[in-house]
Amino acid sequence: MNFEYNEKTQTLLAKLKNFMQEEVYPIEKNYIHAVENAENRWQTPALMNTLKQRARDAGLWNLFLPEEYQPYGAGLSNAEYAPLCEEMGRVLFSAEIFNCSAPDTGNMEVLAKYGNEEQKATWLLPLLNGEIRSAFAMTEPAVASSDATNIETSITREGNEYVINGTKWYTSGAMNENCKIMVVMGKTDFDAPRHQQQSQILVPMDTKGVTVVRPMSAMGYFDEPIGHAEVRFDNVRVPASNLLLGEGRGFEIAQGRLGPGRIHHCMRLIGCAQRALDMACERVEQRVAFGKPLSKQQSVRESIAKMHCEIEQARLLTLKAADKMDRYGNKVSRDIIAAIKIVAPTMACNVIDEAIQMHGAAGTSQDFVLSAMYAYARTIRLADGPDQVHMMQLGRNLIAEANG
Amino acid sequence: MNFEYNEKTQTLLAKLKNFMQEEVYPIEKNYIHAVENAENRWQTPALMNTLKQRARDAGLWNLFLPEEYQPYGAGLSNAEYAPLCEEMGRVLFSAEIFNCSAPDTGNMEVLAKYGNEEQKATWLLPLLNGEIRSAFAMTEPAVASSDATNIETSITREGNEYVINGTKWYTSGAMNENCKIMVVMGKTDFDAPRHQQQSQILVPMDTKGVTVVRPMSAMGYFDEPIGHAEVRFDNVRVPASNLLLGEGRGFEIAQGRLGPGRIHHCMRLIGCAQRALDMACERVEQRVAFGKPLSKQQSVRESIAKMHCEIEQARLLTLKAADKMDRYGNKVSRDIIAAIKIVAPTMACNVIDEAIQMHGAAGTSQDFVLSAMYAYARTIRLADGPDQVHMMQLGRNLIAEANG
Amino acid sequence: MNFEYNEKTQTLLAKLKNFMQEEVYPIEKNYIHAVENAENRWQTPALMNTLKQRARDAGLWNLFLPEEYQPYGAGLSNAEYAPLCEEMGRVLFSAEIFNCSAPDTGNMEVLAKYGNEEQKATWLLPLLNGEIRSAFAMTEPAVASSDATNIETSITREGNEYVINGTKWYTSGAMNENCKIMVVMGKTDFDAPRHQQQSQILVPMDTKGVTVVRPMSAMGYFDEPIGHAEVRFDNVRVPASNLLLGEGRGFEIAQGRLGPGRIHHCMRLIGCAQRALDMACERVEQRVAFGKPLSKQQSVRESIAKMHCEIEQARLLTLKAADKMDRYGNKVSRDIIAAIKIVAPTMACNVIDEAIQMHGAAGTSQDFVLSAMYAYARTIRLADGPDQVHMMQLGRNLIAEANG
Amino acid sequence: MNFEYNEKTQTLLAKLKNFMQEEVYPIEKNYIHAVENAENRWQTPALMNTLKQRARDAGLWNLFLPEEYQPYGAGLSNAEYAPLCEEMGRVLFSAEIFNCSAPDTGNMEVLAKYGNEEQKATWLLPLLNGEIRSAFAMTEPAVASSDATNIETSITREGNEYVINGTKWYTSGAMNENCKIMVVMGKTDFDAPRHQQQSQILVPMDTKGVTVVRPMSAMGYFDEPIGHAEVRFDNVRVPASNLLLGEGRGFEIAQGRLGPGRIHHCMRLIGCAQRALDMACERVEQRVAFGKPLSKQQSVRESIAKMHCEIEQARLLTLKAADKMDRYGNKVSRDIIAAIKIVAPTMACNVIDEAIQMHGAAGTSQDFVLSAMYAYARTIRLADGPDQVHMMQLGRNLIAEANG
Repeated sequence: MNFEYNEKTQTLLAKLKNFMQEEVYPIEKNYIHAVENAENRWQTPALMNTLKQRARDAGLWNLFLPEEYQPYGAGLSNAEYAPLCEEMGRVLFSAEIFNCSAPDTGNMEVLAKYGNEEQKATWLLPLLNGEIRSAFAMTEPAVASSDATNIETSITREGNEYVINGTKWYTSGAMNENCKIMVVMGKTDFDAPRHQQQSQILVPMDTKGVTVVRPMSAMGYFDEPIGHAEVRFDNVRVPASNLLLGEGRGFEIAQGRLGPGRIHHCMRLIGCAQRALDMACERVEQRVAFGKPLSKQQSVRESIAKMHCEIEQARLLTLKAADKMDRYGNKVSRDIIAAIKIVAPTMACNVIDEAIQMHGAAGTSQDFVLSAMYAYARTIRLADGPDQVHMMQLGRNLIAEANG
Repeated sequence: MNFEYNEKTQTLLAKLKNFMQEEVYPIEKNYIHAVENAENRWQTPALMNTLKQRARDAGLWNLFLPEEYQPYGAGLSNAEYAPLCEEMGRVLFSAEIFNCSAPDTGNMEVLAKYGNEEQKATWLLPLLNGEIRSAFAMTEPAVASSDATNIETSITREGNEYVINGTKWYTSGAMNENCKIMVVMGKTDFDAPRHQQQSQILVPMDTKGVTVVRPMSAMGYFDEPIGHAEVRFDNVRVPASNLLLGEGRGFEIAQGRLGPGRIHHCMRLIGCAQRALDMACERVEQRVAFGKPLSKQQSVRESIAKMHCEIEQARLLTLKAADKMDRYGNKVSRDIIAAIKIVAPTMACNVIDEAIQMHGAAGTSQDFVLSAMYAYARTIRLADGPDQVHMMQLGRNLIAEANG
Repeated sequence: MNFEYNEKTQTLLAKLKNFMQEEVYPIEKNYIHAVENAENRWQTPALMNTLKQRARDAGLWNLFLPEEYQPYGAGLSNAEYAPLCEEMGRVLFSAEIFNCSAPDTGNMEVLAKYGNEEQKATWLLPLLNGEIRSAFAMTEPAVASSDATNIETSITREGNEYVINGTKWYTSGAMNENCKIMVVMGKTDFDAPRHQQQSQILVPMDTKGVTVVRPMSAMGYFDEPIGHAEVRFDNVRVPASNLLLGEGRGFEIAQGRLGPGRIHHCMRLIGCAQRALDMACERVEQRVAFGKPLSKQQSVRESIAKMHCEIEQARLLTLKAADKMDRYGNKVSRDIIAAIKIVAPTMACNVIDEAIQMHGAAGTSQDFVLSAMYAYARTIRLADGPDQVHMMQLGRNLIAEANG
Repeated sequence: MNFEYNEKTQTLLAKLKNFMQEEVYPIEKNYIHAVENAENRWQTPALMNTLKQRARDAGLWNLFLPEEYQPYGAGLSNAEYAPLCEEMGRVLFSAEIFNCSAPDTGNMEVLAKYGNEEQKATWLLPLLNGEIRSAFAMTEPAVASSDATNIETSITREGNEYVINGTKWYTSGAMNENCKIMVVMGKTDFDAPRHQQQSQILVPMDTKGVTVVRPMSAMGYFDEPIGHAEVRFDNVRVPASNLLLGEGRGFEIAQGRLGPGRIHHCMRLIGCAQRALDMACERVEQRVAFGKPLSKQQSVRESIAKMHCEIEQARLLTLKAADKMDRYGNKVSRDIIAAIKIVAPTMACNVIDEAIQMHGAAGTSQDFVLSAMYAYARTIRLADGPDQVHMMQLGRNLIAEANG
């Protein structure tokens, strides 16, 4: 047992922290301001490209991509990448700087695994180079999508093509004008066994019949310039070769990307929460009320202590999940992967909310990142299945094991 | 002891519910849409004037104004008005329809009590008629304003005028283009005893030196078309007669408006929470996951039950506070007024948050009012003093009373 | 709407508070000490009889019994009695002084309603006079008794007798040597519709075949001298006339006693919680740590404030439930009766637990009543159905009502 | 980073689990029953000696004692011992079987470090052999002992002796008839700087002037046969050489024992909680209510899932604390030691309380260990400083660190 990061991680983490200090925090407010005041709010500010280049030059690029995808990526294990992911979580837009932002990360893995050579050349390489962005279209407005068997979008074979019909929403990334490709989940066979009805397919954004209907709000935020789109598919036709892995294997692909995806989300949220705590610690030292700094109030100290304990516990759980994934793979790790998805978003909501409270009105304002972070954390409690679904599965498994 | 609303309230409540049913719910989405898509987002949609006229015609006008202000207002007691206030809380913009929206309500009371005849003619009458709006400038960005003695805006007598300098923010209402008058809190004497330094003064929006710097966001929402402004006062000069009540009596005026103001806020939040629960009850019946409607899940039933219990308890506490205010006045009621300010906003946050969870991604979207309601409830936990200040006062008083 | 107790209640409450002050608090520790050191721990200390006589002389006797049972009892409504019940809750053994302790209260109601003249003479009169005590045997060790249809004790007609077989536990009161009569719930027909299988029957404690197996502990407390017994029924024979109301009507009788019983339990718990808060307020003023009394710590004040808010809200809810019961009866009030059973025990657990924490080690000791109160409150969360059952019912009803 | 126990731990843990399975669980109920029905409730049942011998034979003896105390003890690091400590926590009395029970563990460390040869021969060796037991007298009834500077017991030098006067309570272990020696904390100099007033001294139980006044209850439990005593010291005289380390160094000694002591307490509580969860998983599968096993209820699954997440997080945090202690020592680890003391007891209370709820009335009874475990966990929230003291220190440190 050893709770210390290994040397590879420590070196990269130091480099990354330095990059954040030198390049990111100083421009954080400006970047947000640029987005808010852009003429086209779905266009990524030019500054992003500069930052990307610097990150790439610094060797901080595609850090998420594990060894099996060499030569692409940094070849880090989940446990090695996790602390870096936390660090990126401290600034909401920063993962993109290092080409580590969702849903591109998952999409790149899927393309690397299941894409043919042409698809890799057309989509994977530009994604790995950070030249284009991508989207993942899963959730649907009409049904409880947490139960993936409810999905209604149809993918129908007609000759050498598949025809797609349906409506998706909260398709993250699809609002961005640089988004070129979507991975779409739908059903190729409504009569197959429950988990073999679904398939995943590549749909270029500019395909005829694809309509980006509108941006969706998430707790008051539209998350420009990336956004979450409602997307309509009206008789959208793509070559049959765009189908990934095979008909009826959509669920399987989804499972594969979920493990790392959840670890990333959780570590980013831990980064959010830690930053919120750091901000709170500074704020309470500066603000004076009723004759003394807030930091001298026993209730403030208790709250700070509890925030720290909550964060550190969620961090350890997530690191253990990453370690377990590395050692035993996705399947064996399903319980702890469920556990982190239950724990981390709620923890982040609590901690950020407390930090807001300590900031007073300012905490709710655009002058601090706290309320945007809260919206992100709150949304993740629903994304990729609400807490309740993960608790159902984890609880059921635990009971079964105990009565095994 | 009698927990039933009296006849006057029952009659008005029935009328109000009917009005909401006929006139407000049907246009709710359109109204929000109109605001979101307006060219000038600080201009109230024309539809509001139509609704106001209908409300006035229906006898649902200035319901908040108690008997002592007759002939203005409906002459209701706090306890009689509270249930109506809850009903209005169900639609975020609806209080204005009945000319019952903050901060106009408090400002009208202040003007009616302390204004001279000219001030009443110029500001009070148009406010009572719903022709103009007003703002209340108290909170400051540079200090912890929950401790009102921290306030730094200066109000300095020079001859027949007062000169005002300082910066306020979260001045609710001041973004609206129809806002014509502000009540400003500042200090006339920085050396007086702690609670006699403050004064309140009338400042017309178009006075030279008043700059509306920018709208402030509250948890991602700008609350158009009313908004919360940052306002700068640079050598703003107003006639000495604009000072309300007298130098050093600003704290006293603030105290007077707080009691009813808090009851209103709390009842509106109870309305929000009740609506969120109603929506959740409908939603869980409609959505099917894992083979049955969510409403059949034991955890959903438990959650619904707890939401109901939380709401009903906060409602009873707030109604009792209103009743106590009516019987014994502001001062005697200070503990229960603190109690409702502690209880209701947190309750509303919890209940609305649960409702969001039950709605899935939709609950965070612009298609449902839940996330805007959450932002409102979360903000009220800070407005007019964060929870901690009220708990400090209530706790201190309780301990003192118990130790005789 | 009126939140003030009526004159009848105010007068009785003043008298009761005075009695508690003069007669009960001063002997509280001695009484507990006498019980702990008694040779026979199931024998009520003689002091109890003295206190009973004084209470009766003071007109504080059988206060629980509503008007319909005149000439017995004080003829108070539920809403009039509730505040008195709270007052008695402040001292764990005090309800018996006023002949208002469970399960005698419910048993007296049942006997008054359904007993024949002989049964009334033999059991009801001595109970009304506080000469004997009684027990209610419902819960069984072998099944989840919260679902009353699980009950397995059989009541079989044989000629002019019923024969009872089964095992009960947590039969409160049955350990006390003065307990003479049990009301037993069992099944007369295992094949009838689910809620018509049960019947209730009178079983004198000294009937052949009745074995008091052992006292049951409740969170470490045996609640001497009353206790909770495990009772075995081996071919216990009683006259057929001992069956109450009729075969298959046991569920109906149970429902009838539940409403008032739950209000009593909840008000007593509110009394416990209020006393715990009063004790905490005194303690934190006396104890000094790190240079100042605990009462000056902001976190202590916050905690005290929250305890007060929780108590007052539960109180109002329970009073409203009592008022509703008085106006509309048991059936119409089922939702609010479920609500108080959900709210009050958990509230009392929280508040008492906080008070324990503020007392330090002393709070867990036999020198303070807090840990015994905690055990009582914790147990009530399970007695008469765990929280989850009430939440299931309330949640289901609310959803059904909302969906019309 | 590596979350897996090392081989040494795995081997010992397997052996320990096997021992628990073969020797402890099968006699658990009998042992408790023997204690409850003993003529002398402060006499350890003879069975304990048998179990001790078997544990010793199995090489499961003095596992707590780290390498520096060789040849005594197993020479395990904190991180290696922690998982064993958790396992012992599953049965409340089992730590003694392995000679690993508090307060003997801390006392043995203190004696090994600071005792002279005679003291080692007289007290340490019998303790290491499990022949006698010991007590640690720190808490006092008259003051808030969480602030150690409040302690009032005096230790006064007179010639070659020290004279001790004062009253202690919750002196764990001192009720047991086999307890022979106490470590007593008191003040040798009331005028020295705050943390140099205290000293620790050895007091044999049979010294003249030592009176064991009474056993103290902890949440309804007297924890026979070990117990928590109130002890009076009236002019108790011991040789000057009984003073440990030196005058004014009592605080320093206390600090030294706290680190490992807290890790042990926390790991035992994690063992309690894990056992409670295991029991709950079995129970909900067996009990049927409203037509299906409780285990099929979504709310039960959610609850089970949350219990697991809470336990696992607290476990990881405590393991990390142990690891940090091993690497960097007590002082550097103070923050994480505070954190586990904040987290683990509250977690255990929550988890055990949930398990009780799932067991229904049985969960509160003497037939299950849950309520005794709850009492233990609840008491630890106060022992060795209430949560609030640790939160104060941790919060203060975090704020100081963040503000550099």
